Parts: sequence; C-alpha cells; structure tokens
Amino acid sequence: MHRHFDEALKNLKEKILRMSGLVEEIIGTAIKALLERNSELAYKVIKSDDAINMLEIEIDDLCMKLLALYQPTAGDLRFITSTMKICNDLERIADLGVNIAQRTLDLLKVPPLKVKIDIPKMATASREMLKDSLNAFVNKDSKLAYEVCKRDDEVDKLNHEIFMAVFQCTPEDQKPVERVIDLILVAKNLERIADHSTNICEDVIYLVDGKVIKHHITD
Amino acid sequence: MHRHFDEALKNLKEKILRMSGLVEEIIGTAIKALLERNSELAYKVIKSDDAINMLEIEIDDLCMKLLALYQPTAGDLRFITSTMKICNDLERIADLGVNIAQRTLDLLKVPPLKVKIDIPKMATASREMLKDSLNAFVNKDSKLAYEVCKRDDEVDKLNHEIFMAVFQCTPEDQKPVERVIDLILVAKNLERIADHSTNICEDVIYLVDGKVIKHHITD
Repeated sequence: MHRHFDEALKNLKEKILRMSGLVEEIIGTAIKALLERNSELAYKVIKSDDAINMLEIEIDDLCMKLLALYQPTAGDLRFITSTMKICNDLERIADLGVNIAQRTLDLLKVPPLKVKIDIPKMATASREMLKDSLNAFVNKDSKLAYEVCKRDDEVDKLNHEIFMAVFQCTPEDQKPVERVIDLILVAKNLERIADHSTNICEDVIYLVDGKVIKHHITD
Repeated sequence: MHRHFDEALKNLKEKILRMSGLVEEIIGTAIKALLERNSELAYKVIKSDDAINMLEIEIDDLCMKLLALYQPTAGDLRFITSTMKICNDLERIADLGVNIAQRTLDLLKVPPLKVKIDIPKMATASREMLKDSLNAFVNKDSKLAYEVCKRDDEVDKLNHEIFMAVFQCTPEDQKPVERVIDLILVAKNLERIADHSTNICEDVIYLVDGKVIKHHITD
C-alpha cells in the first residue's frame, strides 16, 4: 500500500513539474512572439495549449485518486490539495499565454504603434514572477514565495502606466482602435499572469509553512 | 465517527451556501453602486470583503479537516474538492466586486461619460450568469450549469463592444483618461465575473455528473 502511494505521489510530482515547465515555456514563447512579431511562435503557443489541458485533467484525476485510495494526512495531504490549486492556476496562466498569442496574430495585421509603450518591461516583470513562483514551488522556498508576492504591486503599476500611455496617444495614433484594444488586453493578460503567480506563491507558503497568508500581505 | 462526519459536512454546506449568498449580494451591490453612482453602496462593498476572506479561510480549513479526519470517498470526496474550487472562485468574484466599487468611487469624482456605452447590459448578463451558476450549484442542476457555460461568449462580445465604443469617443470625450480607463476596467471585471461563473458551472457538472467538461464546450 505504502509503496503504491509513494509511487503515485512521485508520479504526481513529476506531472506537476512537467506542467510547470511547459507553462513557463508557453509564456516565454508567447512574449517572444509578441515582442518579435513572430507569427510562427504565436501559432506554436496556440497549439501547445492542448497538452496543458490534458495534463490538468490528468493531475486533477490523480489527486482525486490519491485522496480516495490512500487517505493521506498532514504534509502529503497539503501537497495534494496545493497541487490541485497550483495546477488550476497553471492552466489559467497557459490560457493567458494563448490569449497573448492570439492578440499577437491580430497585431501582426497592422504596423506597430508609433508611440513607445513599455510592454517589454511589464512582460519581463510578469515572466520573472512566474519563473520565481515556480522555483519557489519546486524548491519549497517560502522565503522566495513571500518576496514574489510583494512584486505584484509593481506589475499593477506598469499596467496602469501602459493604459495611460495608450490613451495619451493622438487620435491618429489610436487608429485602428483594434490595435490599441489588443495592446490593452495584452497588458491585462500580463497583469493576470502576475496575479496567478502570486496565488501560486500563497499556496507554496501554505504548503511549506502551513500558514495562510493571503489577504494579509501588507507591504 | 459517521455522525461527526455528517455534521461537519452539513456545516461545510451551510458555509459555502452562506458564502455564495454573500458574494451574489456583493456583486449586486457593486453593480448598483456603479449604475446609480452611489458612494455609500460602494463603501459597503469594500467593507464586506473581509467577511468573505474569513469565510474562504474557514471553508478551506474545514475541507482539509474533512479530508484528513474522515477519508471521504466517491460523492462526498467530489463534493469537498469541488467546494474548495468553488470557494476559490467565489473569493475572486468578491475581489472583482471590490474592484468595481473602487472604480466607482473614482468615477464619482468626474461627470459621467457623455457617450452611451452599454455597461448596464453587460452587468446584467454577468450578474445573471453568477446567479444561475450558484443556483446550479445549490440545486445540483447540471443542465442549468451547461446552459450558463454557453452564455460566456455573449459576455465576451459585450465586453468587446464596450472597448470599441470607448475608443470611438472623440478625444474630448475621452478626457480625463482616468475615466475611460476606469470604464474599461469595470467591463473587464464584469467579464471575469462571467469567467469565474463558468468555472463554477464546470465544477458543478463534475460534481453532479462526474464529467470533466472544461476545454470541451464547443458551442
């Protein structure tokens, strides 16, 4: 019984690590597609979503089986329920990557906006938050997880700056409106990637320290 | 042992129903505050978020205890894990309500936009999706849950129409930019309420029919 449980748990760990790796890659590729105006990379992202969706279902299913068959307690139970939550966030992050890729394909139909808006800076900040939240999970590093949570405000600020910059364009630069809407949606997607990374970090802190910190980060 | 489990499960059901009721009320009040330009209601929403956050922690905690102490299987196990997910969505929906209330307070500092943009229609559609998703959960009505999932596209369309309308305003009407940004963010919040309602419906379908439908709704 114990041997089977240990094997199933090892299998679960491998799957969630694989999913983390794939999602990080999807976001990296989506951002590269956007910044380099590369439609091939955008299509690659859109295609890769199926694998993530399959993995999400497999992981959820495995968690349910582990809960039903082995009645885990304490640390193992926390690991399984945290994995279910993190898996959910990862799937949504991948969806946001697909959204960015779809917006990229739309943006490729028109010339780039003349006015400089700092999508690259925001993209880097969100991507780093995702990367570090997954490192915190893999290495059970709650200190890093805390640190990542605090960076969310910075991304919100960058998002607001982009919104302001878009609306301060001349009416001529704002046209076609679809382009500025796409840019705003890309910024919003990046902001939500940062939000989900924060959620992952909150789950890591719960997993490692057994503490519920959400709603309590004050600085 | 069984009696304790039944009592704890009943307690969990009561708590998640209470949370559902509160969240539905928060969203209703936030929308009313927005449409009637009522700061008092907006402050009421912002204040009520603490109660939701407390409930989320209590429910999560209770689910973990039920899993650890009673090793539930089959339907009970599905109910507990679905409740954890729905609780998470409810908490995020409440956050979106708070966001709408905060945007409302900002919008009250400036006169209303002259151009008609159909926030009320979108607000009604999102709110109805939330209401019906919670009805589907309470009544274990997977047919209603399916029906709600299909309405998500309509809300996305309304969101896009609002974005287009905002950008088709004259430069004069777009000023101050903070106002149009707030309106766009309100629309985005409404769209995310519809998204989370869809997630709840997917969990209801899993709970009632044991089927995983996400990623498979085609029309």
